[in-house]
Amino acid sequence: MAHIDPWSSVEIEDYEHIFSEFGMEKIPDAWRKKLGHHLFRRGIVVAHRDFGKILQRMEAKKPFINMTGIATSGRLHLGHKVDIDLFLFFKSKGAKNYFAVSDIDAYVSRPRIETMADAKKIAAGNLAHLLAFGLEKEDIYLQSNKEPRYYEFAFEISKKITESTYRAIYGHTDLGKISAVLLQIADILHPQLKEYGGKMPSVTGIGLEQDPHAKITRDVAKRLPYSIETPSFIYFRHQSGLQQGKKMSSSEPDTAIFLDDSADDIKRKVNRAFSGGRDTLEEHRKLGGNPDVDKTFEILKFHHPDDALVKSVYNDYKSGRMLTGELKAICRDFLTETLSKHQESVEKKRKVAEQIVLG
Amino acid sequence: MAHIDPWSSVEIEDYEHIFSEFGMEKIPDAWRKKLGHHLFRRGIVVAHRDFGKILQRMEAKKPFINMTGIATSGRLHLGHKVDIDLFLFFKSKGAKNYFAVSDIDAYVSRPRIETMADAKKIAAGNLAHLLAFGLEKEDIYLQSNKEPRYYEFAFEISKKITESTYRAIYGHTDLGKISAVLLQIADILHPQLKEYGGKMPSVTGIGLEQDPHAKITRDVAKRLPYSIETPSFIYFRHQSGLQQGKKMSSSEPDTAIFLDDSADDIKRKVNRAFSGGRDTLEEHRKLGGNPDVDKTFEILKFHHPDDALVKSVYNDYKSGRMLTGELKAICRDFLTETLSKHQESVEKKRKVAEQIVLG
Repeated sequence: MAHIDPWSSVEIEDYEHIFSEFGMEKIPDAWRKKLGHHLFRRGIVVAHRDFGKILQRMEAKKPFINMTGIATSGRLHLGHKVDIDLFLFFKSKGAKNYFAVSDIDAYVSRPRIETMADAKKIAAGNLAHLLAFGLEKEDIYLQSNKEPRYYEFAFEISKKITESTYRAIYGHTDLGKISAVLLQIADILHPQLKEYGGKMPSVTGIGLEQDPHAKITRDVAKRLPYSIETPSFIYFRHQSGLQQGKKMSSSEPDTAIFLDDSADDIKRKVNRAFSGGRDTLEEHRKLGGNPDVDKTFEILKFHHPDDALVKSVYNDYKSGRMLTGELKAICRDFLTETLSKHQESVEKKRKVAEQIVLG
Repeated sequence: MAHIDPWSSVEIEDYEHIFSEFGMEKIPDAWRKKLGHHLFRRGIVVAHRDFGKILQRMEAKKPFINMTGIATSGRLHLGHKVDIDLFLFFKSKGAKNYFAVSDIDAYVSRPRIETMADAKKIAAGNLAHLLAFGLEKEDIYLQSNKEPRYYEFAFEISKKITESTYRAIYGHTDLGKISAVLLQIADILHPQLKEYGGKMPSVTGIGLEQDPHAKITRDVAKRLPYSIETPSFIYFRHQSGLQQGKKMSSSEPDTAIFLDDSADDIKRKVNRAFSGGRDTLEEHRKLGGNPDVDKTFEILKFHHPDDALVKSVYNDYKSGRMLTGELKAICRDFLTETLSKHQESVEKKRKVAEQIVLG
């Protein structure tokens, strides 16, 4: 038991039937090791479509398009950090970077956001976080502040999706949500228009459940009257919510650690998080805890950069040498230190972020 | 019979049940006379919604928004001339002018137009005609060459139309056609955004069958989170095709006089046009012709600026004093002279038009 790799490919076998059914491929073990980022090593990035093209470009030190985005629907939490980390990883590999701050998308698809002004206020906050993480102004764009060609292209895309295809994928034809889909597809494909630099392999990280978006985007890429490389996608597993059986959700703040949570917030949330510990100390020492269901361990696995530490915590907890309280303390200290440092940088970026959004 | 007014309100009584059913109002006789344009005087503009607001602004010499557009779907014909004439009329009354050259709309809603590049080529041609008619560069915009605020607004509109409302009005949820509708609504309403000058009464001329567009636009205006004056509309009757029972159509060139038709085209089309003449000369002299079904007379009624001439032609043809050949000669000469002069101006505007479109 002491030698189990907490991020072996064994752990993701559950997903393999999904991959084969839907047509994505598992990230091979060789790639996981080669890529040099914990999100790959630990099997958090589980699958891909056409990622081989990107790997080739990386190995040949040729540029590729690095594209992702976040809808400005509220405060950022640790779940968003995975998108950002992947983006920063590809940026470090010499990519052409396009990070969309999706304010129009957020407004049109979310009833809760009542005006574009609200979406932009959220965008300014989100942007400060992105800059604090090391993204540069040039890497980021606001959907509402693009060139006419981008919007023209979003509308062009509407001609290439039939009503029945759309309905089969999404189960509705809500006009606001259609707008969001058109913008998302434009986000992913527009860097390949000649006005933006032309045809080039591109990679976008998404959650497994977002595969329908990937498929429709790849389909549209083939049917537009332009020469566009079919975009590649990598699929990551979502970090789960802090309570059992819940997703991280902005509307239930205790399900997630937000990037602007205070030390007190972190302490409270980590303490209340669902644990893999046994009912009694004796049982725990004797039978060991279950790090695979422990939400605190999951945080370390998704976010702590030190493989050795995360592995030893996994093994110590599983063997019963480490108690739940000790695991929680490690997680709490890690988050408090990381996020308080991050929050200091965020404060320094607020003005620039507001200038970018409000002009 | 000699004293019948060929554009009395009697002629439009047929429409009155439509007006009352759909909620538009007939243009009162007093307005028709007061407005000083043959399209009003001759009952070609038949109905309105809230046009009183515009009339008040005109009488008080206050500005109002003058908004119309054409989809760049092909060559312009006499039918488009009605839109242009109304626009020029309101421009002469001191309006703030917005003429949309709708290239994105044309591309997304018409399968026949295969690329945006094709739509823009057509746009450049159409634009040369508009400039030749006396519109100025500042009066006109290309949908694909607007400010980000305009596109953002088009997407915002998608949030304010429910799927069921849309489906009830249009009977489909074709994504390309949805895009066209969103852009059309943005065209009409965006001049009232604070970024474009703010709340102000606006008027747009449309065909009677386009009333569903007007209604959904007025509805959206009330539900957006901005202070927007519900837009006014005037409704004009469509000039019919040159053959009996046919509409003017770009795909059937002999149904319409195009603004770039040659003298030979005009001669051929006028000669073949459906006439209200009798089978024999004797019958015609005795019983008179029927100008109300005569396509050649219809051209004069829609386009000849001289009321006295048009009235005398009407009466002479109806009494049998004027033969079909004579009527056709008057029409042919009028069109040949008007259009050849127009075409000379168009040639002078081609370069500017191309510069506007292609940048």
